[in-house]
Amino acid sequence: MIIDCHGHYTTAPKALEQWRNRQIAGIKDPASMPKAGELKISDDELRESIELNQLKLMRERGSDLTIFSPRASFMAHHIGDFQVSSTWAAICNELCWRVSQLFPDHFVPAAMLPQSPGVDPKTCIPELVKCVEQYGNVGINLNPDPSGGHWNSPPLTDRHWYPIYEKMVEYDIPAMVHVSTSCNACFHTTGAHYINADTTAVMQLIQGDLFKDFPTLELIIPHGGGAAPYHWGRYRGLAQELNKPLLSEHLLRNVYFDTCVYHQAGIDLLTKVIPVDNILFASEMIGAVRGIDPETGYYYDDTKRYIEASTIVVGDDRHKVYEANARRVFTRLDRQLKAKGR
Amino acid sequence: MIIDCHGHYTTAPKALEQWRNRQIAGIKDPASMPKAGELKISDDELRESIELNQLKLMRERGSDLTIFSPRASFMAHHIGDFQVSSTWAAICNELCWRVSQLFPDHFVPAAMLPQSPGVDPKTCIPELVKCVEQYGNVGINLNPDPSGGHWNSPPLTDRHWYPIYEKMVEYDIPAMVHVSTSCNACFHTTGAHYINADTTAVMQLIQGDLFKDFPTLELIIPHGGGAAPYHWGRYRGLAQELNKPLLSEHLLRNVYFDTCVYHQAGIDLLTKVIPVDNILFASEMIGAVRGIDPETGYYYDDTKRYIEASTIVVGDDRHKVYEANARRVFTRLDRQLKAKGR
Repeated sequence: MIIDCHGHYTTAPKALEQWRNRQIAGIKDPASMPKAGELKISDDELRESIELNQLKLMRERGSDLTIFSPRASFMAHHIGDFQVSSTWAAICNELCWRVSQLFPDHFVPAAMLPQSPGVDPKTCIPELVKCVEQYGNVGINLNPDPSGGHWNSPPLTDRHWYPIYEKMVEYDIPAMVHVSTSCNACFHTTGAHYINADTTAVMQLIQGDLFKDFPTLELIIPHGGGAAPYHWGRYRGLAQELNKPLLSEHLLRNVYFDTCVYHQAGIDLLTKVIPVDNILFASEMIGAVRGIDPETGYYYDDTKRYIEASTIVVGDDRHKVYEANARRVFTRLDRQLKAKGR
Repeated sequence: MIIDCHGHYTTAPKALEQWRNRQIAGIKDPASMPKAGELKISDDELRESIELNQLKLMRERGSDLTIFSPRASFMAHHIGDFQVSSTWAAICNELCWRVSQLFPDHFVPAAMLPQSPGVDPKTCIPELVKCVEQYGNVGINLNPDPSGGHWNSPPLTDRHWYPIYEKMVEYDIPAMVHVSTSCNACFHTTGAHYINADTTAVMQLIQGDLFKDFPTLELIIPHGGGAAPYHWGRYRGLAQELNKPLLSEHLLRNVYFDTCVYHQAGIDLLTKVIPVDNILFASEMIGAVRGIDPETGYYYDDTKRYIEASTIVVGDDRHKVYEANARRVFTRLDRQLKAKGR
């Protein structure tokens, strides 16, 4: 089985975006604020949005199951207050859950959180609980910068975030550290902000000692870990200067990188530098880069091709990257699959 | 000849830092603001600070000439106003010039600019003119985020920066895009802010069309281009979605990456992905990562070893990376060298 640990619902029916636009307008004009119940999307619409897009490509490319979360760039935690984020997160998480019910063999949900700049992360717990207990979510996306590019929350190692980590540990679910859209003109959302956030998160984790407090906490750094594997020597050296243990011990017992790196040389670097046990297959399809690479004739984000062409990830290691690691990190997924005899 | 295009004066005599601390104190207490002339550093002190450090390592490692600029993390453009930055830049640039006079065969200066948040970059021109015309500087360091991690200046493609570019084109000097210290707790200076800035700059240049306006402008993205080469497929794909030309045309006629990547796999990726004509040898020694890599037994930042061990950069390509590309980009350096018969 091939598990893609990083997919977003980027193809939701237009009604979702229209509702969100009304919600945003409602921030300034409360009289026009829509109710959640005013959003109507039928099962047929959901089915079509998936069958013609993600599921079609999964079948073509040969992946089996996607860990599916709301569209990352649409989380936009910087918009409005906690109430706005809370309503929006509930809607988006419900849609991903419905997709997982419609396609139980192919999609399993991961939750976005109702984060809001300056608001205590513990306010996210009720949504998290609902998503795990009622919707069967197997992970969450945690935004280290709910401001959308102004970076005014504390680092991920700060106690500020501990309520989330405590609940994650209790439920034994991992978080993917994933920012949302950038509202800072310096940062292109998917070309700078996403990658910078990944790099930033890795360095925050190196500077701190988070996993001393949470030895079983597991974090996934998406987009191949940002710049970290490419600069692994720098990070090993900086950890050394900070008198931290080797990264194999300090970081890699708790941190994983996905394979959302959209060319062969990048995947080769990732798999050469990072131990195979810390790499999870992912494509973030349909996402940031939707085109066909003229150098290969295939989709940039068809990351399975790079793994298949790899001379580094071979034999049983390929099974680890495709399936075994994901089942180890997403323990609730593993249990769900086993219950179905998969 | 081996030219290291990226060295900072990180080992200046303590008197410099002491003067700077007095200057910073003087921002709040103008009566105690020191005069520039109160900083006294003798030639012998300068000689010792270089001979025991950079020059010693250059001799051991076998590089010949370093393009030498003030300590990047100490530029700290966010501190004080334009007057504070202006005095500080003048002092730091004078020291690098004096080093180049004391060691004319080994150091050639590149200037920091007296940038200040919210201040028009054209205020930097007089210092730039002095450094080029009187001090023989062959390049500049341009900080895309003088706020130190808050990123509230416009992107590098904005007309805001054009006065600098116009002068660079007039003088035919390149800029290294290099931030300074981070005063944002989210960003470790050398582990996150530097690398993020590199990545951010690349994406800004992809989004814009700066080189249509300045076809001869040349920019060096340090630290191996941040995350860009590792995610080259992503950047090629994003350029495609933005309907830009191929990166070979849109970016690589004007943009160069240095080799400050501190492990073999990283250098191998850089040299595999980026055309050899766009790679400039550099180590940023003595800089962010000063230790010895236990995996190799050599300094992390001894980047020459990675080039020497490369099976990708061989033969004449090695000469390009070590010397020819630098002479092509730093045309004033080339002329200075030729005038000395080098």
